[in-house]
Amino acid sequence: MEKRTRNPRKAAQRRSGAAKALRARSGPRTTAPARASVRKDSAARESRVVPGGAAATDDTVITALDLDAAPLGPAMAAYFDKCREKLGFVPNVLKAYAFDMAKLEAFVAMYNDLMLAPSGLSKLEREIIAVAVSSRNRCYYCLVAHGAAVRQLSGDPVLGELMVMNYRAAKLTRRHRAMLDFAEKLTAEPWQVEEADRETLRKAGFSDRDIWDIAAVAAFFNMSNRIASATDMRPNRLYHAQARTSAEEPL
Amino acid sequence: MEKRTRNPRKAAQRRSGAAKALRARSGPRTTAPARASVRKDSAARESRVVPGGAAATDDTVITALDLDAAPLGPAMAAYFDKCREKLGFVPNVLKAYAFDMAKLEAFVAMYNDLMLAPSGLSKLEREIIAVAVSSRNRCYYCLVAHGAAVRQLSGDPVLGELMVMNYRAAKLTRRHRAMLDFAEKLTAEPWQVEEADRETLRKAGFSDRDIWDIAAVAAFFNMSNRIASATDMRPNRLYHAQARTSAEEPL
Amino acid sequence: MEKRTRNPRKAAQRRSGAAKALRARSGPRTTAPARASVRKDSAARESRVVPGGAAATDDTVITALDLDAAPLGPAMAAYFDKCREKLGFVPNVLKAYAFDMAKLEAFVAMYNDLMLAPSGLSKLEREIIAVAVSSRNRCYYCLVAHGAAVRQLSGDPVLGELMVMNYRAAKLTRRHRAMLDFAEKLTAEPWQVEEADRETLRKAGFSDRDIWDIAAVAAFFNMSNRIASATDMRPNRLYHAQARTSAEEPL
Amino acid sequence: MEKRTRNPRKAAQRRSGAAKALRARSGPRTTAPARASVRKDSAARESRVVPGGAAATDDTVITALDLDAAPLGPAMAAYFDKCREKLGFVPNVLKAYAFDMAKLEAFVAMYNDLMLAPSGLSKLEREIIAVAVSSRNRCYYCLVAHGAAVRQLSGDPVLGELMVMNYRAAKLTRRHRAMLDFAEKLTAEPWQVEEADRETLRKAGFSDRDIWDIAAVAAFFNMSNRIASATDMRPNRLYHAQARTSAEEPL
Amino acid sequence: MEKRTRNPRKAAQRRSGAAKALRARSGPRTTAPARASVRKDSAARESRVVPGGAAATDDTVITALDLDAAPLGPAMAAYFDKCREKLGFVPNVLKAYAFDMAKLEAFVAMYNDLMLAPSGLSKLEREIIAVAVSSRNRCYYCLVAHGAAVRQLSGDPVLGELMVMNYRAAKLTRRHRAMLDFAEKLTAEPWQVEEADRETLRKAGFSDRDIWDIAAVAAFFNMSNRIASATDMRPNRLYHAQARTSAEEPL
Amino acid sequence: MEKRTRNPRKAAQRRSGAAKALRARSGPRTTAPARASVRKDSAARESRVVPGGAAATDDTVITALDLDAAPLGPAMAAYFDKCREKLGFVPNVLKAYAFDMAKLEAFVAMYNDLMLAPSGLSKLEREIIAVAVSSRNRCYYCLVAHGAAVRQLSGDPVLGELMVMNYRAAKLTRRHRAMLDFAEKLTAEPWQVEEADRETLRKAGFSDRDIWDIAAVAAFFNMSNRIASATDMRPNRLYHAQARTSAEEPL
Repeated sequence: MEKRTRNPRKAAQRRSGAAKALRARSGPRTTAPARASVRKDSAARESRVVPGGAAATDDTVITALDLDAAPLGPAMAAYFDKCREKLGFVPNVLKAYAFDMAKLEAFVAMYNDLMLAPSGLSKLEREIIAVAVSSRNRCYYCLVAHGAAVRQLSGDPVLGELMVMNYRAAKLTRRHRAMLDFAEKLTAEPWQVEEADRETLRKAGFSDRDIWDIAAVAAFFNMSNRIASATDMRPNRLYHAQARTSAEEPL
Repeated sequence: MEKRTRNPRKAAQRRSGAAKALRARSGPRTTAPARASVRKDSAARESRVVPGGAAATDDTVITALDLDAAPLGPAMAAYFDKCREKLGFVPNVLKAYAFDMAKLEAFVAMYNDLMLAPSGLSKLEREIIAVAVSSRNRCYYCLVAHGAAVRQLSGDPVLGELMVMNYRAAKLTRRHRAMLDFAEKLTAEPWQVEEADRETLRKAGFSDRDIWDIAAVAAFFNMSNRIASATDMRPNRLYHAQARTSAEEPL
Repeated sequence: MEKRTRNPRKAAQRRSGAAKALRARSGPRTTAPARASVRKDSAARESRVVPGGAAATDDTVITALDLDAAPLGPAMAAYFDKCREKLGFVPNVLKAYAFDMAKLEAFVAMYNDLMLAPSGLSKLEREIIAVAVSSRNRCYYCLVAHGAAVRQLSGDPVLGELMVMNYRAAKLTRRHRAMLDFAEKLTAEPWQVEEADRETLRKAGFSDRDIWDIAAVAAFFNMSNRIASATDMRPNRLYHAQARTSAEEPL
Repeated sequence: MEKRTRNPRKAAQRRSGAAKALRARSGPRTTAPARASVRKDSAARESRVVPGGAAATDDTVITALDLDAAPLGPAMAAYFDKCREKLGFVPNVLKAYAFDMAKLEAFVAMYNDLMLAPSGLSKLEREIIAVAVSSRNRCYYCLVAHGAAVRQLSGDPVLGELMVMNYRAAKLTRRHRAMLDFAEKLTAEPWQVEEADRETLRKAGFSDRDIWDIAAVAAFFNMSNRIASATDMRPNRLYHAQARTSAEEPL
Repeated sequence: MEKRTRNPRKAAQRRSGAAKALRARSGPRTTAPARASVRKDSAARESRVVPGGAAATDDTVITALDLDAAPLGPAMAAYFDKCREKLGFVPNVLKAYAFDMAKLEAFVAMYNDLMLAPSGLSKLEREIIAVAVSSRNRCYYCLVAHGAAVRQLSGDPVLGELMVMNYRAAKLTRRHRAMLDFAEKLTAEPWQVEEADRETLRKAGFSDRDIWDIAAVAAFFNMSNRIASATDMRPNRLYHAQARTSAEEPL
Repeated sequence: MEKRTRNPRKAAQRRSGAAKALRARSGPRTTAPARASVRKDSAARESRVVPGGAAATDDTVITALDLDAAPLGPAMAAYFDKCREKLGFVPNVLKAYAFDMAKLEAFVAMYNDLMLAPSGLSKLEREIIAVAVSSRNRCYYCLVAHGAAVRQLSGDPVLGELMVMNYRAAKLTRRHRAMLDFAEKLTAEPWQVEEADRETLRKAGFSDRDIWDIAAVAAFFNMSNRIASATDMRPNRLYHAQARTSAEEPL
């Protein structure tokens, strides 16, 4: 069902998203003149509707690897059902791992412990670490999925954007700034992290157990970002529109 | 009216956005125990509503510089009126430049020529260059404002996200990929751009005049990104929710 | 037992390793003269024996975080026993995770699946990916522990050194060079990995499942390297001398 | 008149500058022996005169793009005349923009406001920012043209070289060092610029308006450098020899 | 005798080291199936002995350049004899330079003055600078040869590994940390070294003459690392196993 | 005679060069107003003459290290005399090394062999490698001294500027471009240099001996650049104005 074949039709279909959207708008390019005369932008061209768009197939073709889905074991079948019930869909990362039950189960166990188990860090704090790390690594899958989580958990759609774009532009408490500076340094230059960096976290009020959790979340997304980039993993389309308006916003 | 004072109350208010949102969620941090006991995430804590959020004051405090707005000259007054009529608001970048009419007028003249005048590049193509460049430079203002423009001009909300996050993850035509690869290289390592790079654009169908326009848009946003970062320019809040759903999306 | 306290004595003791070794050799530095006279190197000074050395306490103080070991659950107790039986010791990374059974179990499950389960990659191939990634991230713990594994699995002590120092200096088959180039790029610039990179692996004979495994091992060590660097994790001293001579070497 | 054609003869001629200079000196290379015998440097070879040299055609072929000059409008015609009168020539950057009057006028308006209008920064200060930024971006055109401006405005030929090569090697006041450090950071890592950087400028005596001007000049040359690199813009040859000796120098 | 020919047989032999070691272990790869079935790791395969290994020819083929050894002059002949007597072999770097006596003699004179002449830095201190610099430059030859020297001079095999892998992970005195931080910065970003960096060394107890020596050793290995990388210089195999156990170690 | 003292007066004098030049031009800064009014640039201020300038003391204070000159041995005394006779002065780098005859002699021997002995590379070719490497390392001393050498040996003042600013902007033969690309890569990322890079040089007509010489010159300046940066070495003022006009230039 989640199987991904590599026949030419699908590949073409996959590639057609953004291509179609932009081509539709920039008009026919069949004649590239030796010296281009300046063409008029037609307002009409800009406003045409594009059925499909940049990620039309994101929910059917999940990665660039051709791996058959394995039969779900009972635990994972129940977990997928729970996802559908709570989220309305199964996150594509889970379908991507579902070619091998041992790998899927190990991933789910580690993810749930890190992101949902009791911790000195709130769930929202763990999600903003996830997004700040994914921003440094420019991971499309994780920015889309966890950007949505930040918007939902915080009720603040702008906060999600800030974490995706540049956490330094957000107005953060000293606690959160210290937390994200540590995660960023650990992502960009892990070999430079030293006692002084841990001390900065302690001075910002974090316990040694909190430091482990900050490090573990940042480290986990350094793994996930790379799995996603290595396989061209596509996020579920539904994430994009989630939690885009805050309760009190006049729009 | 657009004056920005630097009194302590306002500064505090400015800084309070994301700080408040996250603090509300992570609970009181008054007692940092020598050895942190692991605290339970309370579901209640996560769901509280935050009036304001990460960018509450973005529309009142536009930059970190304390510069008095100058009286608008007649041309700029008319231009601001036109913005209000067409967009519903005056983009904050214009208010930021409004401390000096000569600077505002020069910026508006160059911007309008580059982004709106006839060109072999469609307006959407120019906007995706703007966003891809701003992504490399992690410019919060430009990513918010021009990300919204890409969503609107394309009718494809996912395309805007892709340009913000990592244009390489989008499924682009050879034309658009060549255009963005050139803009990225010109942004990151301008000293490495050579004839071979121009030839790649020519082979992708661009005329020499198109190459100028690609270069000029990419170069302009390398300027704008730096003005915005140097002054901590804040985008109008209204951009965030614009064009988040495409016509055919079931949501 | 594996508890790590933060009292001053231990901290001093921890810091004393390399310090003592080098100080012993460079002689008393108590009088830093305004203009240093050039002192003679005494041969005697160079040859003194240092009890302890640069990592004297590596096996007693495992990380820089003050976390109490939790009681081992039955599965993990059995696993630690198996380590002692097969390796002669429990790898410090396991002791570092042992403050929390859920975290330890998730780590062990993922590690064993990745590094030991059936795969198109041999165990040695997985270990050389681990070391090449850890070299890029300059992770002391992982270079020591997995460098030893490469020496042991290959029976070639020089191969371990090459992976630690610069895999490009090794004389590798096209298969192994492609595998390590992919792992290196995924480590250094994950946002640049694209279909062309996957195609290079396919042309070097790797299946799509193999590509997942290469990516998963590289990604996992990008996580582990960062856990180790964030916590200043120290490798067991025994690794250093393991498998330093090959069968046929005359030494 | 300023038209640039792309016929093969001109291209060959363009490329011949440095090539000829160096080839003339390194002697005939027609026979690359399988094992090179070490050839004697002949003193004669080193001293031959090269008519033309590395940039022989810089004043006739201004960019690598084939764009026809548009007829100059009256304002720009007057401006070009003024350049000839005051400088003795029209700077090539103006000829490069002269294919389109709207673009030329917008560039001239912004440039003149930034570099010549009243400001808390002297003209020389604005020029040293221009050169320091262009040095970071290794922009040949801007280093030549604005390096000459620094030499002329300061009467100090060494200062121009210092800004081109490494501004950190100059003996600067705290004011100028702070100014250039800000410009350099804004050029290299705009996403890292924050309130602390603005505070450093304020402490060095700059007003908020001065900060805008520092940022605006640095940002403008980040644009110009990229236009020049994207189009391979060549500086007027006359710049090279300008202001090479200071009044009091004994040479 | 030390002549290096470039005939195909030798080249093939050279390349075969690591290739053979790894291929032997990963089994026959003749049939790359369209969809790889997951193959079992056979324990047998992992344990096979490889005669030769990753650097089998390191002592016969010293660089990738085909240069005939010149006849040794009397001074250099005596020096080579002294090497054989004291070390048991002639370091390959000397054989690499031996195609030209003037170059060999200049190298030996500079090396011996820097590393062996009287200095405020002990010989061990000079060697750890050599290794830390070579680690930043990932120079295989220098890491092998000078890593062995650190192990021997210190009697601490772990210290050698720490310098090769990441000197920041070692527990160093302030003196040695300052010394290596200076060497690292001078290696990575020489243009950023300024008076403040020299002052840090002075505060750590170094005289101005010591600063010269730190700089000179770091600079020299920035030269040697590049000669070795440019020519693919191979270290003598004997270095790898030298000084791997300390006096007091139970192994 | 060449002694450098560290008394406060000299230090102040040293620092005063560029500082004075710029301060003279930007007027008194004694009153930094809370809100800076925009001050007029006075033409007068810009044109004042500055006695001294940015490097006034370059010929009296040669490095930032306080090292006494040693008595010159007879060989070095003769060499200094020869410099005065042929160049008109003793290059400051020689005075910097003159605190220790063994170091001075080793440097001179290596330098003269590399830059002046017979080679398949002309002297000019060796000098352009020196400048291109020094440009990557932003070494003020070497850019000034060897930039002058390129201007003199080539008779082409523009070629010197091109090598200082960005060698990619010069119109070079394939031979020279390959040579400089190799030198640049060896400077920036020596660990990435491989057989393919050497093959590119061979295809451009270089023998293996030539490759050694390219590597050796590039490597040597990677050493010299760092000695100069570590010690803040100042070039002789006379270099700046040397060979600024070519024979056929109309100026």
